[in-house]
Amino acid sequence: MAKVLTSQADDFPRWYQDVLAKAELADNGPVRGTMVIRPYGYAIWERMQAEVDQRIKACDAVNAYFPLFIPESYLQREAEHVEGFSPELAVVTHAGGKELDEPVVVRPTSETVIGEYMAKWTQSYRDLPLLLNQWANVVRWELRPRLFLRTSEFLWQEGHTAHTDEADAAAYAMRILREVYEDFMVNVLAMPVLVGRKTAGERFAGAINTMTCEGVMRDGKALQMATSHELGVNFAKAFDITYLDAQGATQHCWTTSWGSSTRMVGGLIMGHGDDSGLVVPPRLAPIQAVVLLVKDEGEAGDTARAVTAELKANGIRAVLDDKVSQSFGRRATDWELKGVPVRVEIGPRDLASGQVTLVRRDLGEKQPLPVTGVLAGVEQLLATIQDDLLARALRERDARTSDASTLDEAAEAAKTGVCRVPWSVVRGEGEKRLAESAVTVRCLQRADGAVPGSDDEEDLVAFVAKAY
Amino acid sequence: MAKVLTSQADDFPRWYQDVLAKAELADNGPVRGTMVIRPYGYAIWERMQAEVDQRIKACDAVNAYFPLFIPESYLQREAEHVEGFSPELAVVTHAGGKELDEPVVVRPTSETVIGEYMAKWTQSYRDLPLLLNQWANVVRWELRPRLFLRTSEFLWQEGHTAHTDEADAAAYAMRILREVYEDFMVNVLAMPVLVGRKTAGERFAGAINTMTCEGVMRDGKALQMATSHELGVNFAKAFDITYLDAQGATQHCWTTSWGSSTRMVGGLIMGHGDDSGLVVPPRLAPIQAVVLLVKDEGEAGDTARAVTAELKANGIRAVLDDKVSQSFGRRATDWELKGVPVRVEIGPRDLASGQVTLVRRDLGEKQPLPVTGVLAGVEQLLATIQDDLLARALRERDARTSDASTLDEAAEAAKTGVCRVPWSVVRGEGEKRLAESAVTVRCLQRADGAVPGSDDEEDLVAFVAKAY
Repeated sequence: MAKVLTSQADDFPRWYQDVLAKAELADNGPVRGTMVIRPYGYAIWERMQAEVDQRIKACDAVNAYFPLFIPESYLQREAEHVEGFSPELAVVTHAGGKELDEPVVVRPTSETVIGEYMAKWTQSYRDLPLLLNQWANVVRWELRPRLFLRTSEFLWQEGHTAHTDEADAAAYAMRILREVYEDFMVNVLAMPVLVGRKTAGERFAGAINTMTCEGVMRDGKALQMATSHELGVNFAKAFDITYLDAQGATQHCWTTSWGSSTRMVGGLIMGHGDDSGLVVPPRLAPIQAVVLLVKDEGEAGDTARAVTAELKANGIRAVLDDKVSQSFGRRATDWELKGVPVRVEIGPRDLASGQVTLVRRDLGEKQPLPVTGVLAGVEQLLATIQDDLLARALRERDARTSDASTLDEAAEAAKTGVCRVPWSVVRGEGEKRLAESAVTVRCLQRADGAVPGSDDEEDLVAFVAKAY
Repeated sequence: MAKVLTSQADDFPRWYQDVLAKAELADNGPVRGTMVIRPYGYAIWERMQAEVDQRIKACDAVNAYFPLFIPESYLQREAEHVEGFSPELAVVTHAGGKELDEPVVVRPTSETVIGEYMAKWTQSYRDLPLLLNQWANVVRWELRPRLFLRTSEFLWQEGHTAHTDEADAAAYAMRILREVYEDFMVNVLAMPVLVGRKTAGERFAGAINTMTCEGVMRDGKALQMATSHELGVNFAKAFDITYLDAQGATQHCWTTSWGSSTRMVGGLIMGHGDDSGLVVPPRLAPIQAVVLLVKDEGEAGDTARAVTAELKANGIRAVLDDKVSQSFGRRATDWELKGVPVRVEIGPRDLASGQVTLVRRDLGEKQPLPVTGVLAGVEQLLATIQDDLLARALRERDARTSDASTLDEAAEAAKTGVCRVPWSVVRGEGEKRLAESAVTVRCLQRADGAVPGSDDEEDLVAFVAKAY
């Protein structure tokens, strides 16, 4: 089979571009930095949305929708926040056929506008916690866009919550990190993310604590896949989000925010993809099994249709490919490019002996199977692939993770993977030194892997890497 | 119980505003004309999305996502289209900290940008039909906004399809109208919409045929709830959407577009609501049954929890209200305001004789029920309410529909409802004459209720009304 993709080893960024195009995931939009998400890419995003949304709802948050346009003045109320975003803002100056009295900003995130409404809705401690989530598009102007990873417009969910006290806010931000993001990434995406705390320099504008899930890509670089922030009372003070406590005294709320985006699609591609294209874990896959009719002879067509129907009736997301006017090889390659976990090949030759062929995308292994056993075979193979992908990713991450005890060693190790280095070695001037080699601290962990409560704890470990 | 809402008879528009506020559906956004959709309003929209999306997918269309920002030049390629939208456009002139070389428009609809990509993706007749749908926010600047009905930003789905010939495009536009919109509105929203063809004057900018589903509100006004357009080859010519036919000749595609939006939430409110608030049909309702604990005495609390669990385990969207620190009357009123179809009231007095009380929201009727029969009782009542709401709406629509044979009669009748008048009486100058009384032709039908293929058919009936 002719190579349709640049190989990862030859040129990883070009391999990524090739996969986007050949698997028909996304295309550049007409305005610089924007993205068209093609149907197959969007189907993957819809599956991500469904899984993340279900976990958010299980954490008692409810969805709402806030406007795209934000008065410029809102962003100026929280000084750090406006500094963090101002160079990225898109501004509407004309609407309804004339110049606006006050320009409006296209939301880069909705903290400020949601803060305004939280202030209206929060009267008493009985109204708390207020747990809101929104699925929306946001805009942050990008000069060096990369599809899914960094685009001027992207799709995301942003959660915003208000609590009576710091402990409740901290516990909720952590719950979202663990029960929504980490659980989704490990158990659905099959990606063993590093979960930790961001350093002060890497924190979200206006946050007192930012926690992150960092994926490790197959080229050894890190990708921030989701973050959860404690905002302290900073936003509550700027937006006057207060409540009456049980004693009737006015108190500021403690707020959090947390988000995950279409960037996760980029993480999926670079975390599991190989030289044959995308590899989608079965639990995520919009198409889990493709039934590929090799040749429409004898009973092959009827069998392929019956098998597809049987798989679907049993809850497997299956499709039939009976486009026999196109070459079998070309079709098989296309399904490999799209990363569909299992291929069921049905042709007259195998069928003559009552057999079909099962092909697993991740390893390329083929196994013959009696046609009567397809359902059980596919179910079992999907479960196996899900487990194997996580195990493979974990092995690879471990193989790409090294230890260092000096900044120079760390910078050197970060050329090819993630490096664990004592935080005491880095803190102070270390982050600037690493930045000279385009290396950043991705997160801090305690020695036992737990997320620290402060950058000042003893014996913290810094994970440093190059990152997307 | 004190009246919490203005009555419909006293002031329908104010009743509508009251329901939005008291049922916590939506609020005005900070930028004029924008809207905050509150969690309960958004839960209703999510249910609409799920039902519409499922029907769209059953019509073989696939979801994708196209950018928010459109180059100004795109809108100018189709002359009628730009005329239709230019006064409503919001324009971004500054981004990334500087003035843009070419201002970009915030999409008022995505025909133009999707047209651009259809042109790239459509090579041969084998690529057709190309059936795309998008869920997105769009912006059309509104000087007289009304929440859900007309807002500067709204949420919608917009379908865009390309076909080899006119017949295929026409059939698909009609299929969407009937199998997606009409089916959803009749069978889920319980709203007996009028389905017909728009006159040339009421057509979508650039369309050769616009078809509509028109709801009749409880004040006798009409509301356009969804539209499906045939765009002929107008957009294909402007955006060079061509394909090679089986003979190898280049042909223009025939395209369609179709949309439904958060406006349907407004239609739901005004189509079913009453003086006690919203009335949500069971198939749509995000909460189908609320289990209301009257007093937490004896076994009442445990029973209420067990009943809620039983309902949920059987697929009923049920919630428990055990906030006994608030008055029972206040809680009952709040659930009425929110239009939850069935209330299960569980209190120690009824329980002493093994009974609970079922209350249906639409008629306010109460019925005692043995506690062992709650599941069956609720299931049956939900089905009954769904049917009764549609029957009631149909009766009311018929009662509000009259016949006229002159323009003056029609204008008079449209003061209180919908009027059927021969199209031959209206055509030509009639639409202008009716417009003087703020009356419009909502749609044209054949005598048998079918959607006509042309405005020029004989014996067409025009439905005229005032409209939102």
